[in-house]
Amino acid sequence: MRELKITPIRNGTVIDHIGSGLALEVLRILGIPNRDRDTTVSVALHVRSGKLGWKDIVKVENVELSARTVNAIALIAPTATISIIRDYRVREKRTVDLPPRIVGVLRCPNPNCISNQPEPLESEFEVTERRPTVLKCAFCERRVDDFLRHLA
Amino acid sequence: MRELKITPIRNGTVIDHIGSGLALEVLRILGIPNRDRDTTVSVALHVRSGKLGWKDIVKVENVELSARTVNAIALIAPTATISIIRDYRVREKRTVDLPPRIVGVLRCPNPNCISNQPEPLESEFEVTERRPTVLKCAFCERRVDDFLRHLA
Repeated sequence: MRELKITPIRNGTVIDHIGSGLALEVLRILGIPNRDRDTTVSVALHVRSGKLGWKDIVKVENVELSARTVNAIALIAPTATISIIRDYRVREKRTVDLPPRIVGVLRCPNPNCISNQPEPLESEFEVTERRPTVLKCAFCERRVDDFLRHLA
Repeated sequence: MRELKITPIRNGTVIDHIGSGLALEVLRILGIPNRDRDTTVSVALHVRSGKLGWKDIVKVENVELSARTVNAIALIAPTATISIIRDYRVREKRTVDLPPRIVGVLRCPNPNCISNQPEPLESEFEVTERRPTVLKCAFCERRVDDFLRHLA
């Protein structure tokens, strides 16, 4: 029953404590599946968690996340923790943390916003509320709280 | 590093040898994520496989698949094998097998087809070619070979 076990990874990233049902959105943020990348990805959905009741986990081999990707995950899965694995050991573990401004992660839902014009500017949102997160477009002030629909 | 291991399941189904990149489509067929179900699901994407080069695996706890679900998987992932686990043991293992007729899995892409009318009939397709699979609507004879777009 070899196929029933998913072995630890040597190098990569574990995104744990993702709210249950949100792992596939985290994959979307990571651009997975991507046939060009030589990366094994493991996902566990609806796993028992002391902290959250139920949680999802995503494990990505040979990938460390950019700051932009971590910001996107912080929007979609604010309870997530990120561990960086090197040589089978957790070298760094942290909770995702929403910075005061989110640049380039979302598209503004206002079609007339200057960030959506033919020569688009990079989108920029200000975090105006936390838990739950609410953002305001830095250009047109449109309020956004459903981030899944507006990922760039 | 408890979170790095996904333990074997007591009861459930392992869908192995899924073509690389197709596991999320298999999840869609299984209706996952579904917050109502008390089911842990594990997915491995882009795993080395002797047979296929690379493959995906989906493991679903406490679920055995209906014939209709197996037919849908056979359309999307014709190389898949399905193992039924009971009490930690593989009780049954088989390749997916496409029956000569596929009932209720796809929607006919022809909007005028009688199966798409206000009082819809259950869709029905005949398998006219295998490897790669081609289907023909039993009502309007529309040919279908891109199944992902037409899952009912």
